[in-house]
Amino acid sequence: MTLSLSEVLEQIGQRAAAASRILSQTTTAEKNKALLAIARRIEQETETILAANEADLRAGSGRGLSAAMLDRARLDPKRIRTIANSVREVVDLTDPTGEVLKEWGRPNGLKISKRRVPIGVIGIIYESRPNVTSDAASLCLKTGNAVILRGGSETIRSNLALVEAISEGCKEVGLPEYSVQLVPSTERAAVTLMAQLDRYIHLIIPRGGRSLIEAVTSAARMPVIKHFDGVCAAYVDRVADLRMAEQIVVNAKCQRPGVCNAIETMLVHEAIARDFLPACANTLWERGVELRGDLLTQEILGSKVVPATEEDWRTEYLDLILAVKTVGSLEEAVEHIETYGSHHSDVIITEDAVIAQKFLNQVDSAAVFWNASTRFNDGAEFGFGAEIGISTDRLHARGPMGLEELTSYKYLVEGKGQIRG
Amino acid sequence: MTLSLSEVLEQIGQRAAAASRILSQTTTAEKNKALLAIARRIEQETETILAANEADLRAGSGRGLSAAMLDRARLDPKRIRTIANSVREVVDLTDPTGEVLKEWGRPNGLKISKRRVPIGVIGIIYESRPNVTSDAASLCLKTGNAVILRGGSETIRSNLALVEAISEGCKEVGLPEYSVQLVPSTERAAVTLMAQLDRYIHLIIPRGGRSLIEAVTSAARMPVIKHFDGVCAAYVDRVADLRMAEQIVVNAKCQRPGVCNAIETMLVHEAIARDFLPACANTLWERGVELRGDLLTQEILGSKVVPATEEDWRTEYLDLILAVKTVGSLEEAVEHIETYGSHHSDVIITEDAVIAQKFLNQVDSAAVFWNASTRFNDGAEFGFGAEIGISTDRLHARGPMGLEELTSYKYLVEGKGQIRG
Repeated sequence: MTLSLSEVLEQIGQRAAAASRILSQTTTAEKNKALLAIARRIEQETETILAANEADLRAGSGRGLSAAMLDRARLDPKRIRTIANSVREVVDLTDPTGEVLKEWGRPNGLKISKRRVPIGVIGIIYESRPNVTSDAASLCLKTGNAVILRGGSETIRSNLALVEAISEGCKEVGLPEYSVQLVPSTERAAVTLMAQLDRYIHLIIPRGGRSLIEAVTSAARMPVIKHFDGVCAAYVDRVADLRMAEQIVVNAKCQRPGVCNAIETMLVHEAIARDFLPACANTLWERGVELRGDLLTQEILGSKVVPATEEDWRTEYLDLILAVKTVGSLEEAVEHIETYGSHHSDVIITEDAVIAQKFLNQVDSAAVFWNASTRFNDGAEFGFGAEIGISTDRLHARGPMGLEELTSYKYLVEGKGQIRG
Repeated sequence: MTLSLSEVLEQIGQRAAAASRILSQTTTAEKNKALLAIARRIEQETETILAANEADLRAGSGRGLSAAMLDRARLDPKRIRTIANSVREVVDLTDPTGEVLKEWGRPNGLKISKRRVPIGVIGIIYESRPNVTSDAASLCLKTGNAVILRGGSETIRSNLALVEAISEGCKEVGLPEYSVQLVPSTERAAVTLMAQLDRYIHLIIPRGGRSLIEAVTSAARMPVIKHFDGVCAAYVDRVADLRMAEQIVVNAKCQRPGVCNAIETMLVHEAIARDFLPACANTLWERGVELRGDLLTQEILGSKVVPATEEDWRTEYLDLILAVKTVGSLEEAVEHIETYGSHHSDVIITEDAVIAQKFLNQVDSAAVFWNASTRFNDGAEFGFGAEIGISTDRLHARGPMGLEELTSYKYLVEGKGQIRG
């Protein structure tokens, strides 16, 4: 008898719920033992995983996937060692569960303790790279959560082989084999069905393109934490150190242009535009960056600047393109960011502490920087040890999501027979 | 020209977003001044509000509303004074925004500060009682959030009059008049439209019956914090103080049976069932409670007990009815609660600290009690000063939602020109 897709998901949900109850009562030492066993299993199963990956790549190139996509999907012995070592690194991270967040007494003698606990069952929907499979699994395991993964169709065989190794690792140390499960279907309907599974799944994290996130957000009945666009800006103030400004702008644009915390817009105070723009533009041009500017920028930099349209101010290029606008004041810079930005990561470069504090307070973004590259909005750079992504939402988790953001809390209340009058 | 309902909501959303930006930069002193002005305005407008309420009641009785519903909707001069004084009480609560939640340095010299900020724009959808209008408004204002309210149709005129007074109070002290807005429509479609307004609304809190919450959850694109059922249980352990157990059970069931933190189920260890049940049952029967029991309970208490069905274990009676089940062990009690309960508030009555700790750890509810009534799962009883409700969700807010739960956070990062390598 074959189960329908919705029956498969129901079964996965039930198994995850059962696993989650056990994981929530598992000690840190046991979870760490599981992580080590998982890393070992992944290495032991290198050949099986590579064979599965080979089949994924063959199917992908048959379906005409681009070379870049195939490369993202490709595993080799070295990448598998890296994957296993990433799992091992999670052992050294502090397990946040069990932490007492707050403790207080009430006049009636009740003792209340707010304790950090796992969320329960987490669903993660992602595309392409198979290392997300093991990274997400190990972070969820470390925090006592069961996880249901739904990876991209390009790597379904690789992911199944990886999850098989992970399950074996769990079983080996006596943890539930269904602690980590992969939805074994490439059908688009699986995403919608998963998003409706609020009986079992407490949180869904979609990681991928806009259409995937939109589909999950529309369908989901449980909380969703999105990892959306970064339309990030650098504002070069009138009292900026112009050399520092150039370094930060170049780093935030060029160091890795395809990521969410790279800048897409540069705002320059009019008073220093003629001093700052020519040199900075030359450096950016040398790095292959296309500049799209407003009228004053065009006037200062000449015809090499592409005239910017309204659309440029709100575009996440994820590419070597930078929109440039001159502004007359801090207020205008903040107004621009609040109107067109995506509340992700923004920076002011200034030597004036009062101006800087205004910017830090008024710009409503997950991370607001003063004299540092926006590229530092990142779990590892913040010292979180690992991250499941950078949340563009405002509830529960905002900015880098580390282990603490994979937990909830509960209240434990001790009394001596108190009743309410 | 008349705006369509969706145009009205678009306008409300835009105005709330603009108000929220100003409110986020408003000092605690200014917000407190606004609260005092609002309280005064509400008192000054007593006659206008009462006239609107009179019209609501006339319309409601014309539509055949029950006497109980009309009573919930009714205002009088004393209730209006109470409403105004509740707004004044919010002045004395600590404003959580601006609080530094964490501050640390990185090896590269970056200084990171995690700062508490308003959420932004909050939507609250509720039914009936007009005091929710002013309570929700004052808690959102105190935390620097703009709020869009959608109250029940029974009190739309009263709510409009109250919100008018609130807006006047805001204007009087220079805060945006659209800080608090009411959706001026009783159409059901307004709820769905509001739930789609994720361009402006960052969080929706539905307060009301299951069908309202379901409708909001299905339609919402933004995070929803639900205030759902409380299927709460008391477990009387074999080493319980039986007198204490009886007092807690009677209090948790009878003190206010219509609320979510009242118990619906009593689990009794078999070893003490014959000692405990007869006396406890008599007290409950004297209080008018109907008991629905399993076989052993029926055997001990006789035919006055209604035989319990599977359905009873998962029912939130919100009434003087209690389901009673005997269990052979702590594990069986926990298993019952995890299977049938709603993860709201549960209590163990025992003198054994080891058993108690197991129960506290294993029962996965927002608040787990040891020797105290579940009725204490409440913002005021926890010392939060005020509450917007009791969340049955696990993300962002779990259990009583006070002012802190109406905030988000952001990261402020200060550097000296650091760039990422």
